[in-house]
Amino acid sequence: MSKVAIIMGSENDKNIMSGAEKILQDFQIEYETYIMSAHRNPLKVQEFSKNARENGFCVIICGAGYAAHLAGVVASFTTLPVLAVPIDSSPLKGFDSLLSTVMMPSGVPVATFTVGSTGAKNAAIFAVELLSIKDEALKERLDSFREGFNR
Amino acid sequence: MSKVAIIMGSENDKNIMSGAEKILQDFQIEYETYIMSAHRNPLKVQEFSKNARENGFCVIICGAGYAAHLAGVVASFTTLPVLAVPIDSSPLKGFDSLLSTVMMPSGVPVATFTVGSTGAKNAAIFAVELLSIKDEALKERLDSFREGFNR
Amino acid sequence: MSKVAIIMGSENDKNIMSGAEKILQDFQIEYETYIMSAHRNPLKVQEFSKNARENGFCVIICGAGYAAHLAGVVASFTTLPVLAVPIDSSPLKGFDSLLSTVMMPSGVPVATFTVGSTGAKNAAIFAVELLSIKDEALKERLDSFREGFNR
Amino acid sequence: MSKVAIIMGSENDKNIMSGAEKILQDFQIEYETYIMSAHRNPLKVQEFSKNARENGFCVIICGAGYAAHLAGVVASFTTLPVLAVPIDSSPLKGFDSLLSTVMMPSGVPVATFTVGSTGAKNAAIFAVELLSIKDEALKERLDSFREGFNR
Amino acid sequence: MSKVAIIMGSENDKNIMSGAEKILQDFQIEYETYIMSAHRNPLKVQEFSKNARENGFCVIICGAGYAAHLAGVVASFTTLPVLAVPIDSSPLKGFDSLLSTVMMPSGVPVATFTVGSTGAKNAAIFAVELLSIKDEALKERLDSFREGFNR
Amino acid sequence: MSKVAIIMGSENDKNIMSGAEKILQDFQIEYETYIMSAHRNPLKVQEFSKNARENGFCVIICGAGYAAHLAGVVASFTTLPVLAVPIDSSPLKGFDSLLSTVMMPSGVPVATFTVGSTGAKNAAIFAVELLSIKDEALKERLDSFREGFNR
Amino acid sequence: MSKVAIIMGSENDKNIMSGAEKILQDFQIEYETYIMSAHRNPLKVQEFSKNARENGFCVIICGAGYAAHLAGVVASFTTLPVLAVPIDSSPLKGFDSLLSTVMMPSGVPVATFTVGSTGAKNAAIFAVELLSIKDEALKERLDSFREGFNR
Amino acid sequence: MSKVAIIMGSENDKNIMSGAEKILQDFQIEYETYIMSAHRNPLKVQEFSKNARENGFCVIICGAGYAAHLAGVVASFTTLPVLAVPIDSSPLKGFDSLLSTVMMPSGVPVATFTVGSTGAKNAAIFAVELLSIKDEALKERLDSFREGFNR
Repeated sequence: MSKVAIIMGSENDKNIMSGAEKILQDFQIEYETYIMSAHRNPLKVQEFSKNARENGFCVIICGAGYAAHLAGVVASFTTLPVLAVPIDSSPLKGFDSLLSTVMMPSGVPVATFTVGSTGAKNAAIFAVELLSIKDEALKERLDSFREGFNR
Repeated sequence: MSKVAIIMGSENDKNIMSGAEKILQDFQIEYETYIMSAHRNPLKVQEFSKNARENGFCVIICGAGYAAHLAGVVASFTTLPVLAVPIDSSPLKGFDSLLSTVMMPSGVPVATFTVGSTGAKNAAIFAVELLSIKDEALKERLDSFREGFNR
Repeated sequence: MSKVAIIMGSENDKNIMSGAEKILQDFQIEYETYIMSAHRNPLKVQEFSKNARENGFCVIICGAGYAAHLAGVVASFTTLPVLAVPIDSSPLKGFDSLLSTVMMPSGVPVATFTVGSTGAKNAAIFAVELLSIKDEALKERLDSFREGFNR
Repeated sequence: MSKVAIIMGSENDKNIMSGAEKILQDFQIEYETYIMSAHRNPLKVQEFSKNARENGFCVIICGAGYAAHLAGVVASFTTLPVLAVPIDSSPLKGFDSLLSTVMMPSGVPVATFTVGSTGAKNAAIFAVELLSIKDEALKERLDSFREGFNR
Repeated sequence: MSKVAIIMGSENDKNIMSGAEKILQDFQIEYETYIMSAHRNPLKVQEFSKNARENGFCVIICGAGYAAHLAGVVASFTTLPVLAVPIDSSPLKGFDSLLSTVMMPSGVPVATFTVGSTGAKNAAIFAVELLSIKDEALKERLDSFREGFNR
Repeated sequence: MSKVAIIMGSENDKNIMSGAEKILQDFQIEYETYIMSAHRNPLKVQEFSKNARENGFCVIICGAGYAAHLAGVVASFTTLPVLAVPIDSSPLKGFDSLLSTVMMPSGVPVATFTVGSTGAKNAAIFAVELLSIKDEALKERLDSFREGFNR
Repeated sequence: MSKVAIIMGSENDKNIMSGAEKILQDFQIEYETYIMSAHRNPLKVQEFSKNARENGFCVIICGAGYAAHLAGVVASFTTLPVLAVPIDSSPLKGFDSLLSTVMMPSGVPVATFTVGSTGAKNAAIFAVELLSIKDEALKERLDSFREGFNR
Repeated sequence: MSKVAIIMGSENDKNIMSGAEKILQDFQIEYETYIMSAHRNPLKVQEFSKNARENGFCVIICGAGYAAHLAGVVASFTTLPVLAVPIDSSPLKGFDSLLSTVMMPSGVPVATFTVGSTGAKNAAIFAVELLSIKDEALKERLDSFREGFNR
């Protein structure tokens, strides 16, 4: 069980979220990508979230713009770790999606990352870190990745 | 069918949302009040929202703080008008709940009002306005209410 | 009585507000569009607002940028529901029009939607929702519209 | 014609706006104070503004909180100089009243001062400066007032 | 004595401030334009400001970007009315110049207008309004200008 | 290896971060708490971070106020998952610590939670979720915790 | 020549700025404190600034609130290093003084520190650091001060 | 000992930081430029910072974007004066790097300058000012530089 889900609220978020896919490919982590909106497809989101754990996912990365409720809605239906990427697609350029995502109320956590494409990459790296806790080989690939910064 | 629902995300929002109840009492509009969180009680919220229209509600007022997803989640399960009151309960004092509520993405509208207790009153007055469209008597009570401003 | 009014403060807001017109056309709702500024044409705005109900309008959608007072001024002259779209036309890119619109003081509500073209669409959908309260056929068209999200 | 009008949107703004009255008293400028809301008493505001010049006023100071439209509405009905004091009475603590006031669209200016009681004083001093253009005695009293800063 | 001064902090502000010149030309108001920075040319600014009244100026319009101190520095050396236009030239796009200008401390007022080119126009119209207090002909030209809004 | 570290930048953050300790106690997760500042004790922080994995920690929760660099500095020395709680202790009330924490540049992720005490609790719950990926018993305690919301 | 000047805009800033005095006393650095406002006492500020270097000062610390121009005005009259402490005394709680201070235009630098009392302390420590460049004894006292963080 | 270090967090910051190099060249100040990230190369940053003083540096200029920790991390390892330039490279356009840099907690100061390329130039001018304290020739070159503003 070390499959990652990437969900985004709209087709338009694909460019941003592809950075997460790229990282997971580099680390050879299995992942699946879905496009579904918390507001336009709530039952799909609920269905996916409720069954994510038993369907073999261990962590869910959600990218959304505007009043970004996607990660919060997913988190309300699963106790898997939910990672969120606020996307700067509205005229308010990310302040709305950031605050909509990071300020979750008590009891239902969402782990929030940098606004935009940097956040997509970082959320994916965090997913790898999380999987590395009990996976020595993955830890070593992370170490190499980090060492790459100094080359 | 002219019943109003008032939903709030937490017991702590009662003081703020009582201003909405007071207005509806003054206008003799039937209403019911519920406390349920979009994140902590998502199925309750979904159940309520899906059945609201056939249970005789015509409009739903939602009050919530922090990353306030309540109104958005309700709106994703009903085509009734959803009114929202952002509540300034977090350290970011309402900027978070305002942006989380008003910046809804395309297709699923939420009508947002003033942050805090003024918003609770105004959302309720708006509900009365909405009911007044086809109710001459209510229109006249609204006119009197407005005239009261000049006394 | 199910006619919708769309008012905007300036010719420059037409591109944004045409999204509202498109939605109303799709739902076959009768509407009329006006360009008048709360500050440059206050008597026109007043005249329109005072007579809107008896002229057969049931809801008024207002789009404006900068210190957007249009919806508030309209709302001060009518008890019809007033919907507002803050437009990001100033250097402050919508934070000014959003706060000028949503933070209405006690007694005179304005229902505010997303900043920009998404808000124009959502305000129009909300108008349809409002009209659907006592119009079963419209409710069904809204249901189809929503189902379209999952196709 | 050297009378100043002070208008405020609500009884609650009195404490803030009394600083303006105090300055005008110190400079022995005639003034009149009114409480009327742009939204709750629009006709009173309009009536006052349209007749202000012929009623002997030469400048109008407006104090208001929340989405502060008062100065903008007054300015839409007069070509007298309109001075505005944004008041920090809402949960958003003055950012809303500041942006609602200062960001007036093209053609109808409002002169905006500091948020809160400092702004009330400064708007009144500005009114005195404006009257001093053609009043040598007043100019000298302003000079003394300024010299007082160094004592 | 009805000459207006227009000062700007940098050559780069010319495009923005030309809107003020255009308005004054339209109203046939005499004006002079200066480029001098509060920080790079403080003595020039001081010299100008101290002598402005006796040099026949009745009002000073200041446009500046970044931490815009120009209007405040001018105001510290004259009791003439000082009008300010915050310019959105820095990466913070006008929030910095707006707050640097409008939030003047007690005793030394600066009248602030809209950020950017709209503010340049509005500050000039306000200067005309101010001159119209004791100039019936100017008042009538302002009335015609306003009537033009409805044509 | 399922020990959690809680680090905070200052004694003053204890009240906020005790909410994280309480959650870990409730879930019977082993944890250790440290007070060390990224700026005042950089070598301690480095030492701790470099050895955290081999010292049996699987996740590190960091709470800090002002320009909150603590989580970022810890993350630069470990590939363990780093969770961060921005604390609203400065005059800017959390906007500074939030942006300092969540906007991490590419390559070194930090998972950010709600500003203040709600964030402390949510970060701890997230740590439990993360540990639950390969711990069925913990998953069931999380399910009970969630069911508690509906009682 | 190693005397430090501390200037503040108002008596009310004393509590905040005393933290700077305390640090300089601890490091046995000679300093003088002045209260003078950039706007209310511009000639005093100018006089002081122009002569500061020849009067034996090597660095000037300025604390001010609201639209804080003090440091910028001082810097326009001296090429000594000017350090600034934005003070959160206005209703906008420091965002105004921060942006007014830090966003200085090209050519006239001001070194800005944390908003409020922390900034007063840090500006003074920075002054000591600056003096330590050519003062080995002072460098050692700074080292001890830093080591104190780990005790 | 009058060498200046310029450090930036990423290759992408070169365009911005070259303005600092240009100033130092104009004033014939020796400098060295480094690219190293606080998060991706923490040991390099630490090594550099710890040895900067004995390697002949007297001041360190740091430019970084996003959650800009670079200056703070450098400052935690040296008692040399650290100057910081927040860079507007993220979607939040500099508000994040500004607050991450200027709001340093008590005890470890960082002198912050204007966001973006203006800040790079100003930080370098400040470094020259700082070196001028005990260098009469440099003071005179600064005076000429300033006089250039009036030509």
